[in-house]
Amino acid sequence: MRTLSNDLSAHIGTTVTIQGWLHKKRLLGGLTFINVRDRHGLVQIVIKDKDEVEKLRGLQIGTILSVEGLVIEEPRAPGGAELHDAKLSVEVPVTEEPPIEIDKPLSHKSENLDTLFDYRQLGLRNLQEAKIFKIRSELLRYIRSFLYDNEFVEINTPKLVAGAAEGGAEVFKLDYFGKEATLAQSPQLYKQMMVGVFERVFEIAPAFRAELSATTRHVSEVTMLDVEMGFIDGHNDVMNFLQDLVYTILTRLYAEHGDALKSLQAPELTLTPEFPHWTMAEIHELYQKGTGTDVSKEIDLTPDEEKWICEYAKKKHGCEAVFATGLPQSKMKFYHMKGENDTARSADLLFRGIEISTVPQREHRYEQLVEQMKAAGVDPEAPGFAAYVSAFKHGMPAHGGFGFGIDRLTEKAIGLANVKEAILFPRDINRLTP
Amino acid sequence: MRTLSNDLSAHIGTTVTIQGWLHKKRLLGGLTFINVRDRHGLVQIVIKDKDEVEKLRGLQIGTILSVEGLVIEEPRAPGGAELHDAKLSVEVPVTEEPPIEIDKPLSHKSENLDTLFDYRQLGLRNLQEAKIFKIRSELLRYIRSFLYDNEFVEINTPKLVAGAAEGGAEVFKLDYFGKEATLAQSPQLYKQMMVGVFERVFEIAPAFRAELSATTRHVSEVTMLDVEMGFIDGHNDVMNFLQDLVYTILTRLYAEHGDALKSLQAPELTLTPEFPHWTMAEIHELYQKGTGTDVSKEIDLTPDEEKWICEYAKKKHGCEAVFATGLPQSKMKFYHMKGENDTARSADLLFRGIEISTVPQREHRYEQLVEQMKAAGVDPEAPGFAAYVSAFKHGMPAHGGFGFGIDRLTEKAIGLANVKEAILFPRDINRLTP
Repeated sequence: MRTLSNDLSAHIGTTVTIQGWLHKKRLLGGLTFINVRDRHGLVQIVIKDKDEVEKLRGLQIGTILSVEGLVIEEPRAPGGAELHDAKLSVEVPVTEEPPIEIDKPLSHKSENLDTLFDYRQLGLRNLQEAKIFKIRSELLRYIRSFLYDNEFVEINTPKLVAGAAEGGAEVFKLDYFGKEATLAQSPQLYKQMMVGVFERVFEIAPAFRAELSATTRHVSEVTMLDVEMGFIDGHNDVMNFLQDLVYTILTRLYAEHGDALKSLQAPELTLTPEFPHWTMAEIHELYQKGTGTDVSKEIDLTPDEEKWICEYAKKKHGCEAVFATGLPQSKMKFYHMKGENDTARSADLLFRGIEISTVPQREHRYEQLVEQMKAAGVDPEAPGFAAYVSAFKHGMPAHGGFGFGIDRLTEKAIGLANVKEAILFPRDINRLTP
Repeated sequence: MRTLSNDLSAHIGTTVTIQGWLHKKRLLGGLTFINVRDRHGLVQIVIKDKDEVEKLRGLQIGTILSVEGLVIEEPRAPGGAELHDAKLSVEVPVTEEPPIEIDKPLSHKSENLDTLFDYRQLGLRNLQEAKIFKIRSELLRYIRSFLYDNEFVEINTPKLVAGAAEGGAEVFKLDYFGKEATLAQSPQLYKQMMVGVFERVFEIAPAFRAELSATTRHVSEVTMLDVEMGFIDGHNDVMNFLQDLVYTILTRLYAEHGDALKSLQAPELTLTPEFPHWTMAEIHELYQKGTGTDVSKEIDLTPDEEKWICEYAKKKHGCEAVFATGLPQSKMKFYHMKGENDTARSADLLFRGIEISTVPQREHRYEQLVEQMKAAGVDPEAPGFAAYVSAFKHGMPAHGGFGFGIDRLTEKAIGLANVKEAILFPRDINRLTP
């Protein structure tokens, strides 16, 4: 019967068996101390018996051990207890030292990222790295829980598609039994069609982008949350829904995983249930007043403005999430509904200095949609679009939605420097392994 | 304020507004009856006023309506209530009849499947079709809930990989910035590496198979559940875990969605918490006794045997899920642990006449793994495998796992005839749209 590390202190005074990876070994005052790692953390073990110490000779970090011992209260040990009178059994010996640090925090400096990812399969055994991906798994759980509570149906839409849904952007192409297929950049068209079935749908799935850009920020495969909801009164409904989603999952994350976030040096979370919102023009003005830099000719927010307005909102309103409204129509795609005065029925959600999502209303009226497609040079009769326009011909309610990268959300929730640090095995123009 | 169909009977005697799609229209005894569909089902509306009836002239199924009316108790109506004194507001008019039946059950005969999928975006609005995908969404929810309860961490592994993980089988290839990439057939190597980090991991994600087979059963994109767990005593641990998972989610599905399953003509669920298990040799013998057909020379179970043994177990043991053990070593891949007497440390799970999963123990010892790779003609130093073998060199515990298709599980849970009926937008050798 195996006892796990987080359960050790419940067994003080009894003999238990723990199992895990040799994580650390040191000599102190004539005693040998080892740490064994299991799925919940570390167990500290004190070994006096020379025959037992001898079993570890030549064995390295990673060795799989089974250890029987007496549980003794020890406030300085992880979990408040440690094992004494240990009897070791070597399940799987490891004789080579790991090529990357398992016990001390790994460097995430940009010049060290290649090393981080080259040895990813081992570096993730570092407790600090593993915490990032436990948090990511929890975020996924919270998101789905919130969406189920709001009567969303989970869908799985195809990643092999005929033609690029959003046009323009770079796509991966492949030979599909003699035809050309592309890898889906997003489930945009499918999630909209599914509004016609379930009103409210979501998908969490990979999306693929063949961006010929080698900056440290571009990845060619991301995990996207996509949400779409029908019978809205306007894009404000979707904004409010996104606001509630983000507020709920982030406050829950900080409440349930405060210790892990602290140890990862995540910033304090500063959020109000309602996020402040300004138009682009207002943000330009506030920024100019605050910094003296004239940005009135910019169509979009500059990266520095995005940072500045989040800081400003944090100081003035106690909220580091901000909506930017009054976006220019020119940025919108054919499936977006046009607004008044050349502004889009849409808003950007900024969080901790960066845009993490856009919340537009879609064009749901068949004639207008077909007109906008043609104006954008998209053929409504093309194989990739025929079913899509047919859904509108046969009745679609007013609807809107949003998507955001789970990678990006994890990065910003923890306060990491690079989105790749929040991806288990990142893919970019130079990296297809491990 | 919108009232949803499932909430109508809570508002008897009051005036409410419902919104949805015109689903059916008929004249009966001088009155006009319409059904309006929303995300929970249908609302029956009685229209007397000629001006209101006139608003519907020329409008077809799919028209988006907003209807204000008085809620009257009516046991014969869906939800036990209907709307009277209706005032209609046409939100989005539809003037063309749908090309596929929305109101009556659609034919799933194999000769009609092409029509079903050609108009999928509309056919899914049929309530019977939609139920299949609500059930699918629920199965996903139950699976994750069971896995979270058992301390599994959700992972997202790359679908763009260097080389085919499992060798042999057909893969989709694509140009990846001048290099060759393949689409992942499974997360096999990644989930095993992640056992070294979290012990227990799962992923639900698309998997791609370029099988040059045009049978009605083959699809080129599936949604797979993949599970892997460490520190097992043997493959029996994994068998028991899969058994508990399948028992839990199916009994929960039948308990919570009995009505939907019944209306889809799903068979009764016949399961015991422990599934009967027999060796292949025993099944061959039982089958021969039962049918008179000699299968003693078959290496594997024949399709007819798979059906027969599930029926046999259902009759004799009250359980239509069966484990087949004692599988031949020859079927195993390089990452499987060899068993004794040429039988694999593995079992097949059969349910309702078909194999839905295989539960093997993996080879976790570095030297043995490398040896098995070489014997299988797989280069341990190749880019797609170097990280994998490194994880074993630095210590992996005894582990095992399984995967199964969410599509296949949904098909068998409901008792559909073809796996494609359980996929929103299926992909096969002839189909890349919608």
